Amino acid sequence: MPKRLTVDEVHALAKSILVKHGCSDGHADAVADTVTSAERDHAHSHGLFRIPGYVDALKSGSVDGNAVPEIKELTPAIVRVDGKNCFAPLALNAGKDCLVAATKNIGIAAMPLIRVHHFAALWKETEMFAEEGLIAMAFTAYMPTVAPAGGSKPLYGTNPMSFAWPRENALPMVFDQASAAMAKGEVMLADRDGHPLPDGVGITSDGTPTNDPGKVLDGGCILPFGGYKGASIALMIELLVGPLIGETTSPETHRRYGSVSGPLQGGELVIAIDPSKFGAASTWAGDAEALFDDLHAIDGARLPGARRQSHREGALEGGVDINDGLMETLEALAA
Amino acid sequence: MPKRLTVDEVHALAKSILVKHGCSDGHADAVADTVTSAERDHAHSHGLFRIPGYVDALKSGSVDGNAVPEIKELTPAIVRVDGKNCFAPLALNAGKDCLVAATKNIGIAAMPLIRVHHFAALWKETEMFAEEGLIAMAFTAYMPTVAPAGGSKPLYGTNPMSFAWPRENALPMVFDQASAAMAKGEVMLADRDGHPLPDGVGITSDGTPTNDPGKVLDGGCILPFGGYKGASIALMIELLVGPLIGETTSPETHRRYGSVSGPLQGGELVIAIDPSKFGAASTWAGDAEALFDDLHAIDGARLPGARRQSHREGALEGGVDINDGLMETLEALAA
Repeated sequence: MPKRLTVDEVHALAKSILVKHGCSDGHADAVADTVTSAERDHAHSHGLFRIPGYVDALKSGSVDGNAVPEIKELTPAIVRVDGKNCFAPLALNAGKDCLVAATKNIGIAAMPLIRVHHFAALWKETEMFAEEGLIAMAFTAYMPTVAPAGGSKPLYGTNPMSFAWPRENALPMVFDQASAAMAKGEVMLADRDGHPLPDGVGITSDGTPTNDPGKVLDGGCILPFGGYKGASIALMIELLVGPLIGETTSPETHRRYGSVSGPLQGGELVIAIDPSKFGAASTWAGDAEALFDDLHAIDGARLPGARRQSHREGALEGGVDINDGLMETLEALAA
Repeated sequence: MPKRLTVDEVHALAKSILVKHGCSDGHADAVADTVTSAERDHAHSHGLFRIPGYVDALKSGSVDGNAVPEIKELTPAIVRVDGKNCFAPLALNAGKDCLVAATKNIGIAAMPLIRVHHFAALWKETEMFAEEGLIAMAFTAYMPTVAPAGGSKPLYGTNPMSFAWPRENALPMVFDQASAAMAKGEVMLADRDGHPLPDGVGITSDGTPTNDPGKVLDGGCILPFGGYKGASIALMIELLVGPLIGETTSPETHRRYGSVSGPLQGGELVIAIDPSKFGAASTWAGDAEALFDDLHAIDGARLPGARRQSHREGALEGGVDINDGLMETLEALAA
């Protein structure tokens, strides 16, 4: 029997574990917010399920649960946050007001985050800017997982990108998608359960397309989504969150930190845009709604993120189910 | 027998036709530059092949071959170009110096282009900023061609995005890719030649996946690349080049201008980034080269755009072949 928790209980449980294992109150709050948002939207793989990973990183010392992020305005359009080896959520919160102010001032601004440990979904991080009336894009990279175009060895991380568009009488339109055709965790689940992979997800160690998850995991490789075009997106993300901002690319992260447990150090880039500054202040919102209406006029068509957001109200009212095994793990970590 | 022309001859031929059909010297030069770059890189579908389309637009009066683009600095980070119904190339050239200066000043800046008629490949437009030492992204949209996620009617344009990264001792790394799984022109060629389409390219009018190009063209629809993830990219591009900047989305373009011949009015967005302003001025170039080295260490892996760029030197030295039928058409237009 899964246990039902209110979202406040999810937050309290996550926070108490993080504090117990060495997070400052601020970091524990910020990570618990992230985890709770994921549970609330039924994005369970980024919810409480990740708490043991956060704890691993605190235990190994790879993450500093008490780091104080340092903000530096490199230019009127660039707000850099040095996380000093903290978890990403508090670093994002620390830079947020400054990025919002810069963007509302001149219309477009960027926030590079360095020395952060990212272990969350990106959609919350763009959505929080859309709630301030801004468009936002965010990118991050991780360990080598995905083959480049033409190759059959892992090079790029799963490299998600997220994009959020603010709306007046609706939740922001937000998408968040990996450059990988499938998450590595899903490939592992398919292998465990004996399910074949869809076409286009993986290749064997000699580069042959395969539907066998075991062969992908045994020296094979996950493919980018959509072939060479997804690979281009993955490469763009590597460059933006690595070399551009003075952080590591996925292969460099592997060389430097590959043996560390928990989420590894890396970079993130957020670009924010103020739609009221581009010469269409009185029309942009309505024109976007007209596009969304055109979309909804097509049978079966849906906006990205709509399914995830549809869970939100129910979870806020009725709580969320946490499975037995995970509850046991969490209770042990909290004890 | 195809006819071989030097790239200078390609330029002169393109320019003379454009001038003859009503372009000012400046517009004819800018469009001829675009067409010549495409021929030089063996991107023939964006080369002289497009000249009849440019001429159509001049003849129908939908494009003003003498328009003088108007530049307005909306903020220190936003340079808007109003093309006043001109072809896009001269509008881009007109705003370029201002965008470069803004970007080199504060690190990131945007150039929305409105009332332009875009009929070219985007890679030239990001590459020209990379040649100035900047990173650039560019986006544009067109007529409804691609189905949204879950739907089986055209909504999004083919919606290309391009990204360029500057390099010190090599041509910039540049990709340029449509959000559509395949260009509509390629589907038409497959239909003409009786070739089946690859999986994932098209659906019939009732939404069933098909490899039959005839069924895609007969009330069916082209799919986005990579399924719902490509659809998200297409949607992002619609929002950035339509509502954000006060231009039309693809369905709105269709409603307003659907019956006009030649390239239709629309918007474009360029975002430029100065890598020397993000706190890693002394390392960004080398770190990127290290990633490219990691990529080239994988058998068969290649950088996006490398194949296209590989044609450049040969074409500059030896010229390019123009097929008979096209030469006849062009000679008639020039006569």
